Amino acid sequence: MRTDLLGAQIQLIEEKPFSVVIVIAGVDGAGKNEAIARLQEWMDVRHVICNAYDVPSEDERHRPPLWRYWRDLPAKGQTSIVVSSWYNAPLRDRVLGEIDEAELNRRLTAINRFEQLLVDEGVLVLKFWFSLPPDVQKERLKPLKKKARGRRILAEWTDVRRSAKAQRIFEHAALTTSTAAAPWMVIPSQDPQARDLALGRCVEMALTKRLATTPPAEADEAAPATAPRLAPCGPSNALASVDLTRSLDKDLYQEELEHWQAELAHLTDKKAFRDMSLVLAFEGNDAAGKGGAIRRVTRPLDPRRYRVHRIAAPAEEELARPYLWRFWRRAPRLGHTAIFDRSWYGRVLVERVEGYCSEADWRRAYGEINEFEAELGEADTLVVKFWLAISKQEQLARFEAREQIPYKQFKITEDDWRNRLKWDAYAEAAEEMIARTSTPRAPWNVVAAEDKRHARVTVLRTLCDALKRTM
Amino acid sequence: MRTDLLGAQIQLIEEKPFSVVIVIAGVDGAGKNEAIARLQEWMDVRHVICNAYDVPSEDERHRPPLWRYWRDLPAKGQTSIVVSSWYNAPLRDRVLGEIDEAELNRRLTAINRFEQLLVDEGVLVLKFWFSLPPDVQKERLKPLKKKARGRRILAEWTDVRRSAKAQRIFEHAALTTSTAAAPWMVIPSQDPQARDLALGRCVEMALTKRLATTPPAEADEAAPATAPRLAPCGPSNALASVDLTRSLDKDLYQEELEHWQAELAHLTDKKAFRDMSLVLAFEGNDAAGKGGAIRRVTRPLDPRRYRVHRIAAPAEEELARPYLWRFWRRAPRLGHTAIFDRSWYGRVLVERVEGYCSEADWRRAYGEINEFEAELGEADTLVVKFWLAISKQEQLARFEAREQIPYKQFKITEDDWRNRLKWDAYAEAAEEMIARTSTPRAPWNVVAAEDKRHARVTVLRTLCDALKRTM
Repeated sequence: MRTDLLGAQIQLIEEKPFSVVIVIAGVDGAGKNEAIARLQEWMDVRHVICNAYDVPSEDERHRPPLWRYWRDLPAKGQTSIVVSSWYNAPLRDRVLGEIDEAELNRRLTAINRFEQLLVDEGVLVLKFWFSLPPDVQKERLKPLKKKARGRRILAEWTDVRRSAKAQRIFEHAALTTSTAAAPWMVIPSQDPQARDLALGRCVEMALTKRLATTPPAEADEAAPATAPRLAPCGPSNALASVDLTRSLDKDLYQEELEHWQAELAHLTDKKAFRDMSLVLAFEGNDAAGKGGAIRRVTRPLDPRRYRVHRIAAPAEEELARPYLWRFWRRAPRLGHTAIFDRSWYGRVLVERVEGYCSEADWRRAYGEINEFEAELGEADTLVVKFWLAISKQEQLARFEAREQIPYKQFKITEDDWRNRLKWDAYAEAAEEMIARTSTPRAPWNVVAAEDKRHARVTVLRTLCDALKRTM
Repeated sequence: MRTDLLGAQIQLIEEKPFSVVIVIAGVDGAGKNEAIARLQEWMDVRHVICNAYDVPSEDERHRPPLWRYWRDLPAKGQTSIVVSSWYNAPLRDRVLGEIDEAELNRRLTAINRFEQLLVDEGVLVLKFWFSLPPDVQKERLKPLKKKARGRRILAEWTDVRRSAKAQRIFEHAALTTSTAAAPWMVIPSQDPQARDLALGRCVEMALTKRLATTPPAEADEAAPATAPRLAPCGPSNALASVDLTRSLDKDLYQEELEHWQAELAHLTDKKAFRDMSLVLAFEGNDAAGKGGAIRRVTRPLDPRRYRVHRIAAPAEEELARPYLWRFWRRAPRLGHTAIFDRSWYGRVLVERVEGYCSEADWRRAYGEINEFEAELGEADTLVVKFWLAISKQEQLARFEAREQIPYKQFKITEDDWRNRLKWDAYAEAAEEMIARTSTPRAPWNVVAAEDKRHARVTVLRTLCDALKRTM
């Protein structure tokens, strides 16, 4: 078994076709830590990370609960063993009666969606439940506290969770989250050797099976998954109907700009702003003036409390993980603002149009993105999204102007001209994106950007209005 | 100027010969934020990050003060603009009288060493001080608080720092830290346009000059810096004199192992351990049993509070930064333990012997490493270092044994056999390392590892003793 397991892992490390997430859970006294140590001993430990989670730190409390698990997702070729996983907090809260049945179910559903996303993104998710007959467990835990051989870690709700009520909750949770994508596997843990062997064999078999069906990372995707069918959405004309003629004269602009910048400074300076965070996403046609609009937004902000993320082609470490990873890890702390110059919507825009992802990928992205923004919203993050719209002629004029000015030439590349040829495909993708991802909590704001002054003031005003409504 | 600046930056981005750190400091009301916004407007913003630091967060407070600045160091080709930099806390503390002159000087010296290290590692460090005549400043700050156009950020010690005493402290600090490696440049800030132009021009000239003398990142280093002369250190025989015959029989081993593991569990479970952190470095001959020893150490530890870092060849993002970056960023929080299987000592071992760095690089590394460990020590991190020593014959026996067992074959590679040929060179490097980096606070522990049982128990006992002394 050791040879098989190691062989499979070496293939995983060399070909990097996917990453592996192993969730370890189960009853106290089953010897989970021993089994993990053994598994690490059997595998090439340089490519296995054990991520064990404690009470959330300040940095973690300031973000959505899933943030820390997203942050630690392994790269392709790597294996992560997750202890005290995303199941811990919901189960603990329910057992201690801090949340009700409905809230537990809501959280378990969110977990299912999270794991489904991982699986859809190619992660091999293996979940193991270490079980013991109740009398054996009782016997085992008795001497634990005084046992000389090192401390076992008992959570503060250890005693409670051995109650019959807790057992019913665990069973309910196990049933709810044993999905086709990520089923629970039970490891009988009475005999330590059999336990470790069962874990090793299960991991080895899952790895081997998956390796046989997945091509190496470099290879073209062999058989793309069937694209999910989406609910029909009415013909959207959010972009087509925007009135591009709106403009603002210079004096009025200066006045409005100062007014709304002062208002933004005032709002973000309020005490209430310390208990929320702000995420801004800027999308739009090339040369629509995203950078200029962002600079008008950042001017009144405290430079210690915002960060602008310019999203270009993903780096190696980003390509090796689910596409939302690089956005999740940039989720701002409470009191902070993250501004995205292009965003996670690249999945349903450039990646869709240029064929960088499969149709199945971008089709399911609408739901994943809505879920991502909902998670942010749950954690008191206000998400404000702008689409800056210009006409095809105006874009041409701006491209040509950029080519004239030496220090602006770098802003215009072959890619821009190439994208321009696909204007209609991008417009179609954008319309569908706006229709499918305009949620009540995070609607799209389509901004006429033919006149830069009008666009900048509109962005500032929309942002201030959204902030006021939330605060 | 804009064209020159952008041209230089584009060369920097494309050739990636070095990274740029721009420190912005100066009096209130000088318009530092406006100047930074302008500079970002002039450059390709995708490769310029503005890092502004607030009051340290919990995660930051749990580490040495320099940790957050190390964490945010830019990669080669990138530029970081640092606001509220490492100068802030020492100056603030001194102006408010919280530290005395001697402590200020100690901290400024540490800053000089930090900047010297950056410069030695190829970072272009530019420091700008924005100045205003006192009467102009007074005039400018007057209407600031009610100014409608957006908030200016005034620190809580703003008023104090305009006192004559504060000015003397600033001048003293400026003189102390205006080193040859990283001098301060003054930007007169009375006229906003001239101010921004001066900043842009200074950055452009420094960039252009440096680009002319530094070959691209991929090129071989042209003219390596002269190697620093090191103080002679007596002939070291820490390794040569270790008694490799020491061993432990199986029964005694089991007993001792349990005793020291229980002791370690007990010590790390104490309340006092929450206020310190622990860093363990394991070095030694190939096949000396580092992994096995580490597993005996981790067994009694809380899995949520330790992490094992196996240090192999640096990744792309690590190569693009000073070599200590990947160790700094892994500094553990208070109450946590970081275990390094191979460590920052790679610089003076494998990198020295294999010629991966220049002689100048590894010679100055002794001082840099001692400084790194001192910074950790200052922040209540206990650093314990082990050298596991085996004989050349024993290594051969272990290599051959590994090749026999299928699931251990991956542990033995061509590299191991190649390194073995350089046994003497490695021994010499290790002896010098032990002589030059055994500090009172972080001495090397040379462990006879010919007998694995003896080595494991010795490691555990040494660690427990060090913990007891510290706590």
